[in-house]
Amino acid sequence: MTDFAATKAMFDLPEGVIYLDGNSLGPLPSTAPAAMEKVMRDEWGEMLITGWNKAGWMAQPARVGDRIARLIGAEPGHVVMGDTLSIKVYQALASALEMRPDRRVVLSDSGNFPSDLYMAQGLLTSLGADYELRVVAPEEVADNITDEIAVLMLTEVDYRTGRLHDMKALTTKAHAVGALTVWDLAHTAGATDVKLSENNADFAVGCTYKYLNGGPGAPAFTYVAPRHTDAARPALSGWLGHEAPFAFDLDYRPGAGIERMRVGTPPVLALAALEQALDIWDLTTMAEIRAASQNLTSLFIEEVEKRCPDLDLATPRDPAQRGSQVSFRFEHGYAAMQALIARGVIGDFRAPDIMRFGFTPLYIDAADVRAAAEILEDVMKNRLWDNPAYKARAAVT
Amino acid sequence: MTDFAATKAMFDLPEGVIYLDGNSLGPLPSTAPAAMEKVMRDEWGEMLITGWNKAGWMAQPARVGDRIARLIGAEPGHVVMGDTLSIKVYQALASALEMRPDRRVVLSDSGNFPSDLYMAQGLLTSLGADYELRVVAPEEVADNITDEIAVLMLTEVDYRTGRLHDMKALTTKAHAVGALTVWDLAHTAGATDVKLSENNADFAVGCTYKYLNGGPGAPAFTYVAPRHTDAARPALSGWLGHEAPFAFDLDYRPGAGIERMRVGTPPVLALAALEQALDIWDLTTMAEIRAASQNLTSLFIEEVEKRCPDLDLATPRDPAQRGSQVSFRFEHGYAAMQALIARGVIGDFRAPDIMRFGFTPLYIDAADVRAAAEILEDVMKNRLWDNPAYKARAAVT
Repeated sequence: MTDFAATKAMFDLPEGVIYLDGNSLGPLPSTAPAAMEKVMRDEWGEMLITGWNKAGWMAQPARVGDRIARLIGAEPGHVVMGDTLSIKVYQALASALEMRPDRRVVLSDSGNFPSDLYMAQGLLTSLGADYELRVVAPEEVADNITDEIAVLMLTEVDYRTGRLHDMKALTTKAHAVGALTVWDLAHTAGATDVKLSENNADFAVGCTYKYLNGGPGAPAFTYVAPRHTDAARPALSGWLGHEAPFAFDLDYRPGAGIERMRVGTPPVLALAALEQALDIWDLTTMAEIRAASQNLTSLFIEEVEKRCPDLDLATPRDPAQRGSQVSFRFEHGYAAMQALIARGVIGDFRAPDIMRFGFTPLYIDAADVRAAAEILEDVMKNRLWDNPAYKARAAVT
Repeated sequence: MTDFAATKAMFDLPEGVIYLDGNSLGPLPSTAPAAMEKVMRDEWGEMLITGWNKAGWMAQPARVGDRIARLIGAEPGHVVMGDTLSIKVYQALASALEMRPDRRVVLSDSGNFPSDLYMAQGLLTSLGADYELRVVAPEEVADNITDEIAVLMLTEVDYRTGRLHDMKALTTKAHAVGALTVWDLAHTAGATDVKLSENNADFAVGCTYKYLNGGPGAPAFTYVAPRHTDAARPALSGWLGHEAPFAFDLDYRPGAGIERMRVGTPPVLALAALEQALDIWDLTTMAEIRAASQNLTSLFIEEVEKRCPDLDLATPRDPAQRGSQVSFRFEHGYAAMQALIARGVIGDFRAPDIMRFGFTPLYIDAADVRAAAEILEDVMKNRLWDNPAYKARAAVT
């Protein structure tokens, strides 16, 4: 059983703050600054160029990837770190599309994070006018999986509402019509009990600065199913994905397995911070996190609904159908969120009217949830969102 | 006048080491660990999600880019940070190619860093079989700039020999036939007096972990000439290059100017380390660095040639035709370099036979150069490269 009081004590959380925005940027693991100093002084400073081998920097992307593999139900040796999530979306989509050379349609939904859609638009524009990005409403995805579709590209949890797609059902349907899947786990890695291997996912990508607490701008990860790794051509074919990077050949030859999805020089310092965060993840399992998360989100919904009748739940009521966040719609949501933040409860706002709260069992407990709901009640009952200071800010957004 | 003794004192260099590999990974600026701790504790730890605005993380890629612009002769406001150099090569090449839609040939040379060629191969394979990457010998580049060429893509300094291309002449010739240029400044940013604007460069990219001392895996930069920024379509069209990233529109609209070359969430911690390194760069000018660098490389050539007759200079003898490194060919170069490193002089080796030494006036002076040459003489005269320990390692490479 995970000792969540112990994991909570392993983060540096500001005094007097209830942090419900770990779905956007996770907090600082207490050990990270000292570990970073050690990497900077003892590795970068002392080893200099020899750190690539002596300190294991070159192997770091695969070593860290393996620790994340466990958290997303991936086979060991099939996750590698590097680049940003947007870049990894592009890379996975480009590889998947090439594996369906007779098809021209990428299917996604309007609940996808916009950057995923933008990266797809950028790629498809380069590939030619016969390619199409088809964006449908989230609830219409299943019906639109037809044999026209080359790749189904979805973010598992809607960043606004917290609605969770059924990875198993959609992947199965995609495979039945001969399509491949690219799953973005931005809001599920570290949040739900993702089972990539069990659900036969083809490609998956995600970021590490949200639920995984890797720090602002922490690097992304890529998963390719073992059955595809040797067939996937990396469109972003960088030297560290080469079969023999230090042979300095003039021609690219993809490396073995997931290593080919590496591109350029790995972000050593950022990965060092992430490794400290992963030490905390080693103390739990995703099944326990998922159960604790569902308890917290259910409790928050219950507490807020009985206290704040003006807020409309935007998140599925069935815990199995949501990720680890709860969103409420409110006309004056931006100003209300500003008032709430001023009172020490940090969530965030997404246009046009969504107040968003992330729940992270590693450092948020039931007492935090109740306290946050009480403060939210106060903001609503006393119409703090009607304070000109908060409204003025809202006008700028 | 730059006080190079003062700049040298601003780096943490290991005791007893003469570091001639700053062309591969620059050393640790003394202030970087404490500055990093402050960013981690006071910004990430305390501000959490609000750091994006309060701590200026969102504006960091352009702010840092401006500091680099001065070092590469770029117009202010036309350099932005992010991603790895390989990714930036891809992005610049893709944009440039689209601006020459009637042409299909990318010209490069065999002295280019292989990852640049690999990224081009990956891109051109995606674009279609009618595209061609034409790779010629470095000395044949000028003669191969014909009206077939869409983009001339070169690394200014050859990573093996240190030979410096004539950016002005090649860019002028490329423009005369209607081609665009993508210059990789990996071995010139912080090493030579690059003049992007004066030489009419179109696109340029570079890394910051070599001469600029940003740390292992520090982020890359991109330059787009002001005359092209509004025409360049970013193939890697991520949300932070969007005109209004936080509007979360479903369709991509490129941002104004260089901002459109941003892709994903910026690497805040890595950029924080780089900013410390740039504080040191603020104390000098590239004209002074270039003059000091040429003195150091000339001195090293002179000292080594009079002491080590078995080493063949691979670097141009004319200081105007080389970057800030000196390379010697030697049949047993790998073992000799291992012996030299064991004696405290750190350079590196590039197959098949190149011993490579980088000269960095910010922290290497004439006394270091003479001492390194003396130790190299000792290694050569006493045939330390013939020691089985070093030869055994060589066999593995």
